[in-house]
Amino acid sequence: MHTREELGAMIEHALRHMALPAQPEGLYAPIVYTLEEGGKRIRPLMLLMACDLLGGDPRAALPAATATEVFHNFTLLHDDIMDNAPTRRGKPTVHVRWSPSTAILSGDAMLIQAYRLLMQSPAATLPAVTGVFNTMALEVCEGQQYDMDFESRNDVTTDEYLRMIALKTGALIAGALRIGALIGGASESEAATLARFGTDLGIAFQLQDDLLDTYGDPAVLGKAVGGDIACNKKTYLLASTLALAPTKTKKDLALIMADRRIDPDDKFVRVRAIYDALGVRELTERQVTAYFDRSLEALDSLPLDAARKAPLRELALGLMNRQK
Amino acid sequence: MHTREELGAMIEHALRHMALPAQPEGLYAPIVYTLEEGGKRIRPLMLLMACDLLGGDPRAALPAATATEVFHNFTLLHDDIMDNAPTRRGKPTVHVRWSPSTAILSGDAMLIQAYRLLMQSPAATLPAVTGVFNTMALEVCEGQQYDMDFESRNDVTTDEYLRMIALKTGALIAGALRIGALIGGASESEAATLARFGTDLGIAFQLQDDLLDTYGDPAVLGKAVGGDIACNKKTYLLASTLALAPTKTKKDLALIMADRRIDPDDKFVRVRAIYDALGVRELTERQVTAYFDRSLEALDSLPLDAARKAPLRELALGLMNRQK
Repeated sequence: MHTREELGAMIEHALRHMALPAQPEGLYAPIVYTLEEGGKRIRPLMLLMACDLLGGDPRAALPAATATEVFHNFTLLHDDIMDNAPTRRGKPTVHVRWSPSTAILSGDAMLIQAYRLLMQSPAATLPAVTGVFNTMALEVCEGQQYDMDFESRNDVTTDEYLRMIALKTGALIAGALRIGALIGGASESEAATLARFGTDLGIAFQLQDDLLDTYGDPAVLGKAVGGDIACNKKTYLLASTLALAPTKTKKDLALIMADRRIDPDDKFVRVRAIYDALGVRELTERQVTAYFDRSLEALDSLPLDAARKAPLRELALGLMNRQK
Repeated sequence: MHTREELGAMIEHALRHMALPAQPEGLYAPIVYTLEEGGKRIRPLMLLMACDLLGGDPRAALPAATATEVFHNFTLLHDDIMDNAPTRRGKPTVHVRWSPSTAILSGDAMLIQAYRLLMQSPAATLPAVTGVFNTMALEVCEGQQYDMDFESRNDVTTDEYLRMIALKTGALIAGALRIGALIGGASESEAATLARFGTDLGIAFQLQDDLLDTYGDPAVLGKAVGGDIACNKKTYLLASTLALAPTKTKKDLALIMADRRIDPDDKFVRVRAIYDALGVRELTERQVTAYFDRSLEALDSLPLDAARKAPLRELALGLMNRQK
């Protein structure tokens, strides 16, 4: 078994020593910039831990782990263009620092690079590993599409929202765990159980993200809150409100959301007051707990030593106890 | 051996029956729209013909052939955003008909779909086939990056331009031929010879494209000419002019190119007059012939029956005799 620190060091080393050409600089420099940014490396850590858990050699899973991190950052590059996001992890996004065209093209090259890395997985596992990766990658695109579709809708249900985040956030975590398990020699059933752990953890994580953007402490988060309310983002809080609110409240909310000249602070206070009156904060917190508990149950159900499962469990706990 | 018509029908059938989900429609409908548009299917035809030439079964190469066509159309989707192109093959481009975000995301899904298809190639050929595809895909991105880099430069040399189109246009044709050859059971040397045929043919094809945009007959082409001159595109004609023109002419040209208020028709006539005075049309025509002859020499050098090579030779001839 390896510690989180050991696995993390392997990932950083692999990311820094990827075989990328230097030229053309306009294509490859944004990739280096994106991967340097010090993400939490959650997905590759989960992949290596799943492999380790099953008694596999994490080094055999390292190219696939690196592939999931490169893939994740590719989605961020393209999502940031679509969302017109100015910063990411405190630094200018690629489409701002360079250009939208650069962010498109460097993102494309990252997706290709992710496949290059993935295909360095042990030959015997390749058909299964690439199959999981392909399905997962399309699911992430589908999730992003539903998320964009929701922008122009005012009737998104909580079920639709949960399905969307299961694709957009859950699929990649589940896919990483499944791939790590397969390279580690897991049975289909063990791999499926770890994938369930990942999907539910991903959903819990995204729901908590929704909560933090409205109820988080900016001083602790290190960034402003209220972005979701400001841009009428369809979150679990909003979808729950639509499900629970009486007609009068829904009309008030619709007016606030349609008012383009409203002061953002005023909007934030008024929408949050509606959430508070309906108790959607507590409702969402209960959902976070429910999905998180269910994810841990999946992990617990694996007939393996608790000690072997400790790194994954601690990583999951750390994710959920975060204040940012 | 199979006729071009037989192979073409296989490709159309495979493209129409790709296993794509229906939902979310916003993700998948643009993919269907793009692949329906009736392209010439040059790359998948070349791939199947290369396989057939070597005595392989084109059906075994069909998923890879379809993958190259999906990949090619993915690059068009993203390039059209970067070039801000309003139409493609007489229809609105995806970023115009839907949105730039849709074109980015549906393009991403097409790249993933291309890999899904590629991985259905015969297992024994997969390491070689995916290796060629990965290299080719990155080369196409590199070519596009150089092409964009050239936009802000006024000193692009003919050598730099030729290297750019070898990547942007040549690499995919060469890659398709190499993959078809490998699936058909070619030796490394046969596959490399076919790739050389493809690279030089791709360069000849792109140089001819440059000629047609300035010297083509709009009535025959079915589209306007002069787009390259209008937007100061760095073409072989322009790069040759920079190499050949006396200082005075270069200054005149720079003034015309920098004049944002010039009438486009006037600009076209004046730039073309400079080309004519320097003989860059004839120079470019000679280059087209030289690259095309070299590509046919590569094909001829394969120690195989001329009759087996006829379909590839005729496809190449058809490409070069096109008026559009």
